[in-house]
This record gives sequence, C-alpha cells and structure tokens, in this order.
Amino acid sequence: MNKLAVIALGGNALLRGDQKGTIEEQEDNATETFENLVYLFKEGYSVIFAHGNGPQVGNILMRNDAGEQLYGIPQMPLDICVADSQGGIGFMLERCMLNVLRKHNIKRNIITLVTQVVVDKNDPAFQNPTKRIGKIYNKMEADKLAAEKGWIFKEEVKIKDGWRRVVSSPKPLDFFNADTVEKMAREGNIVITVGGGGVPVYIDEDNRVRPLDAVIDKDLAAAMVAKKVKADEYYILTDVPYVYANYKKENEKILEFLDYADTTKYLAEGMFSEGSMAPKIKACLDFIENGGSKAVITESKKLQDKNFGTKITMEYDETDLHKYDK
Amino acid sequence: MNKLAVIALGGNALLRGDQKGTIEEQEDNATETFENLVYLFKEGYSVIFAHGNGPQVGNILMRNDAGEQLYGIPQMPLDICVADSQGGIGFMLERCMLNVLRKHNIKRNIITLVTQVVVDKNDPAFQNPTKRIGKIYNKMEADKLAAEKGWIFKEEVKIKDGWRRVVSSPKPLDFFNADTVEKMAREGNIVITVGGGGVPVYIDEDNRVRPLDAVIDKDLAAAMVAKKVKADEYYILTDVPYVYANYKKENEKILEFLDYADTTKYLAEGMFSEGSMAPKIKACLDFIENGGSKAVITESKKLQDKNFGTKITMEYDETDLHKYDK
Repeated sequence: MNKLAVIALGGNALLRGDQKGTIEEQEDNATETFENLVYLFKEGYSVIFAHGNGPQVGNILMRNDAGEQLYGIPQMPLDICVADSQGGIGFMLERCMLNVLRKHNIKRNIITLVTQVVVDKNDPAFQNPTKRIGKIYNKMEADKLAAEKGWIFKEEVKIKDGWRRVVSSPKPLDFFNADTVEKMAREGNIVITVGGGGVPVYIDEDNRVRPLDAVIDKDLAAAMVAKKVKADEYYILTDVPYVYANYKKENEKILEFLDYADTTKYLAEGMFSEGSMAPKIKACLDFIENGGSKAVITESKKLQDKNFGTKITMEYDETDLHKYDK
Repeated sequence: MNKLAVIALGGNALLRGDQKGTIEEQEDNATETFENLVYLFKEGYSVIFAHGNGPQVGNILMRNDAGEQLYGIPQMPLDICVADSQGGIGFMLERCMLNVLRKHNIKRNIITLVTQVVVDKNDPAFQNPTKRIGKIYNKMEADKLAAEKGWIFKEEVKIKDGWRRVVSSPKPLDFFNADTVEKMAREGNIVITVGGGGVPVYIDEDNRVRPLDAVIDKDLAAAMVAKKVKADEYYILTDVPYVYANYKKENEKILEFLDYADTTKYLAEGMFSEGSMAPKIKACLDFIENGGSKAVITESKKLQDKNFGTKITMEYDETDLHKYDK
C-alpha cells in the first residue's frame, strides 16, 4: 500500500506577507507549491491537503462589513465566511494543482470537500477568545457591534482606539466524512479538506449539528485529519526551512532532527512562539503520539531536498534522510 | 440497485423573493425543503443535489465591490465568487440536511464538493452575454470598470442611467469527478455538487484548465450531472407547483403529464419564458433524451404528494402517479 501523507498548506504556499491578495498572486503561489510537490505524486504517495485561510477569510470578513455599510447587505456569520473561503481557496488550489499534474502527465483526480470540523462546546478556549479577526474598529463602533451582534472585542495594543473582534480557537476533535476521505485518498484521489481548519460545529444535546463563531487552527485540524485517516507522514508547509531553537536570537540554532521527548520538553519550556510555531509543534506531537511515523515542518520549495526541514519522529532518528534516498 | 435521483434546488428552496438573505432565512428554507424530501431518503433513493446561488453570489459580488471601494481589497474574479458561494451554501445545506436526517434517524453521510464544470470556450453564448450580475452602476462608473477590468455592461431598461455587468451563460458539457460522485451516491452517500451551476472552466490548447467569467444555469448543470451519473429521475424544485401553458394568462392551464414530443413542440412555440421556465424545460428534455426515465418540476413542499408536479417522460404517461403509490 502506498504511503499516505497529509499536507497542511500555509504561509507562503498560499499568500506571502508582502502581497495584496490578488487572485494572480494566489494562483502563482499555489502553482509553485504544487510544482515542488510533484515528486511526492510521482513517488505514488496518497495525499490529503489541508490549507489555511487567514488572509482570504480576513478579506471576506472585511467585505461583509463593507457590503453592510454601503449596501445594507446582511452580514454572514463567521461559519459561512469560513465555508466561503473553503470554496474559493479549494477551487483555486484544485485548478492550479490539476494544471501542474497535467503538465507532468500525472493522472490523478482531485476532490475538494467542504468540511465541518467537530469541536467541544465546553472547550476551555471558549472562556478566553484570543483569535483576532476582521476589521479594526474604534470604541464606539465596537460597542455598537457588540450590542447588535454579540461580538467580543479586545483592544489592539499598537493602535490608538483600535478594537478588534476576537473569537475562540477550540481544539478540533473530529471531522465529517473521515472514512470517505481516507478511502478516496487511498484509492489514489488527491483530497482537499478542512480548509481554514474546517467550519467549526458542535453537537448539541438534541444531537443537532450547530455552527460556532470560532476558528480552528489549520495545523491542528490537519493533524487531526492525519490521525483519523491513519496517515504515515504529516507535512506542515510554512515560511521557514526549519524549526529553530532561540529563533531570531543570537544563539539561534537549526533543529533538524527532533524526537518526541525533546520536542515536548522544548515546547513546555516556551521555546516556540505561541502565535506561530507552537501550534505547529503541538500538531506534530499530536500526530506522532497517535502513531504517525514522521512529521516535517519546512517550506514547500525545500521539501524535496531532504537536507532541509525539521523532522519529528518518536525516537531520535538522524538516518531519516538516507531512508528516502533513491 | 436503488434509484438514483438528481435534485436541483432553486427558488424558494433556498431564498424567497421577499426575503433579505439573512442566514436564518436561508437555514429555515433549507430545513423545510429537506423535511419535504425525507420520504425520498426513507424510500432508499440515492440522491445527488445541485443548487442555485443567484441571491448569494449577487451579494458576494456586491461585497467585493464594497470591499474594494471602502478598504481597497482586491476584488476576486467571478469564478472565485461562484466557488465561494459553493462553499457557503454547500456547508449550510449540508448542515441543515444532516439535522433533518438526524431528527428522522436516517443514517446517511452527506458529502459536499467544490465543483468545476467544463464548457466550450467557443460556445455561441460567449458572442452574446446576457446574464446580468452584481451592482447597477451609472454610465461613468460602468465605463471605468469596463476599461479597468474588461467587464461588459448593458443598460438596464427600467432604471435611468443604470448599467449592469453581463456575462455569458455557456452550456455545461462535463464536470470533474463524475465517476467519484456517481460511486459515492450509489454507495448511499448524499452528494452536493455543481453549486450555482458549477465553476465554469475550459480546457485550453495546452490541456490546461482555465476559469471563465461566466455563469452556468444550475438546472442545465444538474441535468448534465444527471446524464453523466445515469440517474433514473431528475427533479427541479422551484417556486411553482406545476409548469403551465399560457402562464399567468386568462387561458392558463396546468401541464401535469408531458411527453417528449409535446414538450419539445411547446418549447419551440415559445410557450415557456426564456428567463425562467424555458431553461428548466430544456434541462428536462436533455435528461429525457439521454435515457432518463422521468423529470419532475414542482415546489419542494408538493413533491411528496404525487398529485402535484409536472412529470415529463419520453412517452405520454398519465399512469405515472399510480406507479409510485405504496
């Protein structure tokens, strides 16, 4: 049976920090990313993609605000905005990937799913919403929106009279259609799922599926998918070639091979920044402790060259590189 | 083998003309629609849903305009807007349907796909774009947008200095992942696909998949799906209980049982209005002439009562009703 990999696309793979977010930029980034992954398809890997949606859903939220202000169009709740972004980004990724596959004469179907991810309504994250989303308002506007829509606001530290909506980021527990996704992927189809971390829902006391005003970390969602489909490998494609110890400090050091115990220790010591690398490390640990054989964090353009990338395995394993040499 | 039905959801099933388009309205309409379809699930039908996106993608286009005006956020092209609407509406339909199924103890997976529909770049529709979309501009604004974005505008007859963007509505020829959709549906999964008629793409001379500024009629797209998956029955759920001869005239007459020959004749005579009923009739004829056994046009709330609905079959068949009696 071919190896099954789950790949979380984020950062530069979708949109660079210095870009405006035009569709041309997004398509170019996606195409370059998939060119870098052609070797995986050629090696016969079964692949499931997850992807971020930060800049895109940010724009969708801003457009919702603008549409209401200018034209009185009812704003959609966050769950619909996330689902919208799954459609738009998913289509864009599917089309760009199809063209890369066609160019390289690789015959694979790509199936893009709209995906709900189940969270616990009593997740402690709901006690302390931290994820800042959408437009920055002044106090008066923020108070008005809080009263009208029940939104929660926190002050922006660097902006005078700047208030931003915050939502919770609960832990992903499960996703709908896991069996189908695994089956489709193992049959050779490339599957795109849990876009933007998935649309967060919970199951209420009457067994109904209800949406939540929340966002799910896409790396954690992808790791949850990797666990559920029993993937062999888990890749997080981001903006740096490695995970570093003491990142951007004088004693910065590349961490190329990490075992489970050391990684857990570094994480507990606060080695990785909460806003960016820590959730990725948590996602990798979650995958490894649930039977995954290898998790890799790197840039998409560095993935094929096995000299790059931080490889996390249960046991320290520096020979990893050579196992994949042809 | 269970019967396979393709159902196109439009009109009241998604949003009534007198509604603003809030998410609560959409969810209520969807829930009511699926309650009306429970009998089909109970009878063991395999079901594939297609759906419209008119009001939703209209709002998405308006929000894109507003976001650019107010915040300078780059507008997304029409293909991305349609894909966004597939995500948002698809999720909303999936969640509402899941809750109806759960209420009735029906165990079925629902799988929502982001779907590209292939059209011919040389479709004659591209010579004469007729589908009005997005905001109504004045001449000056329209000229500016035409120059900047290459959009084509036509004057609104009833609005002074009102100009609206027009795009083409080419014929749907094929859709990606048809085999997978058929397989999933026949295995008992409910599949939602070709939302809003599908994202229109064409295959260029280099075998690349390219998007198009166009919209595809959702009833024609659904009929195309019904043909490709070899469905037994095709349902169009809309705002009227029947198709009528001489609709809204003094001599209006219900057409309950129609055969292929009569329907073709009525269509050619201009009996059905081009903007609304004619494409639905064309979609049904397309399905029937390609081997489908029955096409039905009605309201969702009338579907279960076989006394309602216009049934189109190859041969005139008034006994149709009794075949489905229990």
